[in-house]
Amino acid sequence: MSQAPIRVGILGCGTVGSALVKLIRDETAAVKDRTGVDLTVTRVAVRNLSTDRGIDFEPGVLTRDPRALVEDPEVDVVVETMGGIEPARQLILAALEAGKPVVTANKELVANCGAELFEAAGRNSVDIQFEAAVGGGIPLIRVLRESLVGERIITMMGIVNGTTNYILTKMTEDGAAYAEVLADAQQLGYAEADPTADVEGHDAGAKAAIMATIAFGSSVVPGDVHQEGISRISSEDIEAARRLDHVIKLLAIVEQADGKVSARVHPAIVPLTHPLASVRDSFNAVFVRGEAVDDLMLYGRGAGGAPTASAMFGDLIEAAANLQRGTHIELGHLEAADVTPIDETSSAFYVPLDVVDEPGVLAAVATIFGRNGVSIGSMEQQGQGDNARILLITHVAREADMQATIAELKDLDAVLRVGNLIRVIGS
Amino acid sequence: MSQAPIRVGILGCGTVGSALVKLIRDETAAVKDRTGVDLTVTRVAVRNLSTDRGIDFEPGVLTRDPRALVEDPEVDVVVETMGGIEPARQLILAALEAGKPVVTANKELVANCGAELFEAAGRNSVDIQFEAAVGGGIPLIRVLRESLVGERIITMMGIVNGTTNYILTKMTEDGAAYAEVLADAQQLGYAEADPTADVEGHDAGAKAAIMATIAFGSSVVPGDVHQEGISRISSEDIEAARRLDHVIKLLAIVEQADGKVSARVHPAIVPLTHPLASVRDSFNAVFVRGEAVDDLMLYGRGAGGAPTASAMFGDLIEAAANLQRGTHIELGHLEAADVTPIDETSSAFYVPLDVVDEPGVLAAVATIFGRNGVSIGSMEQQGQGDNARILLITHVAREADMQATIAELKDLDAVLRVGNLIRVIGS
Repeated sequence: MSQAPIRVGILGCGTVGSALVKLIRDETAAVKDRTGVDLTVTRVAVRNLSTDRGIDFEPGVLTRDPRALVEDPEVDVVVETMGGIEPARQLILAALEAGKPVVTANKELVANCGAELFEAAGRNSVDIQFEAAVGGGIPLIRVLRESLVGERIITMMGIVNGTTNYILTKMTEDGAAYAEVLADAQQLGYAEADPTADVEGHDAGAKAAIMATIAFGSSVVPGDVHQEGISRISSEDIEAARRLDHVIKLLAIVEQADGKVSARVHPAIVPLTHPLASVRDSFNAVFVRGEAVDDLMLYGRGAGGAPTASAMFGDLIEAAANLQRGTHIELGHLEAADVTPIDETSSAFYVPLDVVDEPGVLAAVATIFGRNGVSIGSMEQQGQGDNARILLITHVAREADMQATIAELKDLDAVLRVGNLIRVIGS
Repeated sequence: MSQAPIRVGILGCGTVGSALVKLIRDETAAVKDRTGVDLTVTRVAVRNLSTDRGIDFEPGVLTRDPRALVEDPEVDVVVETMGGIEPARQLILAALEAGKPVVTANKELVANCGAELFEAAGRNSVDIQFEAAVGGGIPLIRVLRESLVGERIITMMGIVNGTTNYILTKMTEDGAAYAEVLADAQQLGYAEADPTADVEGHDAGAKAAIMATIAFGSSVVPGDVHQEGISRISSEDIEAARRLDHVIKLLAIVEQADGKVSARVHPAIVPLTHPLASVRDSFNAVFVRGEAVDDLMLYGRGAGGAPTASAMFGDLIEAAANLQRGTHIELGHLEAADVTPIDETSSAFYVPLDVVDEPGVLAAVATIFGRNGVSIGSMEQQGQGDNARILLITHVAREADMQATIAELKDLDAVLRVGNLIRVIGS
């Protein structure tokens, strides 16, 4: 099965792009041996031709014109590592229209424009592959698209943002405060100077949209995803979870029931016995519960040049093999999902209340919960006098009922402060 | 893309076979919608036609003749759920020679005869799929074959036997003795009446052979795998590990270095911070370390009718799709692996010694280690007088050197007993 090499054009050559170029160079012989697919990098589009990337390119490989790369007859497959929506979107659409398979790690683009890209790929009978867009080196998309294509997925819960998991791990294991850990993480390069996209859950929200789209086969975009971050999580919250043998994690949760999809990102209290609880530092993991397969978890490096390039390399080999065989992956036409608003979803909740330490307070609080149809699982008073607190954990309740309960609690004179409401995951 | 349904013949209809028939019935419409693959079960070969399987088969579907099923022109794809080497091997070879893709969960067969089966599949340009042969519902084989096909895998460590993981979990969490937990597990149906294949590591050994074969692209058979089980693990060993913030797990370990492969199954002391440490009860998990992807772990149900059927269903859909598109997976020709004997592998070791409590013993023990080139990482004396023990953990040492050390220690008068040597995994 000796065939002409598949010629690869790469858009962008930063950390991920250059890691991918090196992987292709080092592993092409072994890959050809195993799969019959022979890859060669013929074009790389960059902003600056003179940047030192630690790679010797043949003359003519580097170009500053990404559009010309996409249209170049010497490029069979296009890899996009630029990031951002434009011009990546237009370049990818042009590649697909030219009958060239595309590999991308661009979560923002896939989350916002997935349906359009999949449609263009289908129309032109070529692959669009995007394994690295969620969970970096973790093979989530392939597992969902192939291994679990016949599985009825009930829920998926993911730790899909390494920065926030690193911060929460340090807060948990070192007892440090949020602001302090964030500052350290920024200094170490684990968090951006402007950490908003990570700590407010927007990065995880884009990934949740992709997870829901692929798992449930209908289009979910970031605007459909309820997003709460970790900036309000205090050392007190972490300590309260610890006393209950739980940890706090930022989770991306997607669910499907009765043809409706829900997708949300928020901190959650997770029991230590749950496999997600042991995912530490900047590692990512996605937990899947399916009707037949039961519980499954995929764990690994959610970011970083080499792990991301590893996922893209797997995609590239499959895209090239499909091109050679004249086949492609069917993603189908995606209708917009019927999305359940957050108010109609259900969770158990942890509710800390600073209260006046006087007889009848517990009864008054419990009455408000009962009136709103929120049933209390456990209730504990801590401290006395000025430091009196009530810590409650509810049974599974509707979000809207819980919010109505909180509103009434805030009006109660004996309640001095309603602390952070945090959702609780069962085991 | 409306095509004629792909006609499925199933060999065997026990727990897994009947779970698969139900999955195909319940999910075919959704799968057709997503992938264009339409499946219908036309033949099922069973030993006993009158067994109640909770399924209404159309007349003519059930047969007692597996050979006729394989040769039936109304069967396009063959699924094997019989287990054992013969007659499964001959039936599968006949199906492949007839140009029919095969899906199997038969670990014994794939471990012992994989190279022969893959060769036959390749020669006839059809798929042989065997995801469920290792790790039940965990998508390990697809991830290795596709996502990681370009990855240089350094090591894989798996908890791939649910029975032994259940026993070790109960010993760890309840402080129970091995014999007691085994008896309970047998009563609950988690362990066989004859538990040898599980507790002595033979089941895990077959899975290790398959893992090594797929990860490293050369044929490794169960006879190449060093196999030690858990029957010698005592509550004392578990407690010693716990004091070190470690747990004991039965691991299947495959490694590759300098073109040589090593594959072994043995109990190992694993630090609590390692992701494998939190794999509890009968769950399975496989930890992969690759050069680019770094650390990856896949976790899930290693056995059970529905999870195993889920994995086979994913295989069946891919095999059917490939048949429709006229393509197939390339497994290539496998040469026998160059296998490193256990004596030449290296590990850190935990060594407990019952000793005579007198001056100079530590020095005498340490001298023997040093003379054999085994360097000591930590050394602690516990107890006094008749209960004096020395607990040592070595640095990474060659197995042969460690065994020579043990032989010399046994000859030392001051050493009353050499306890269980257990290998120690780093974090």
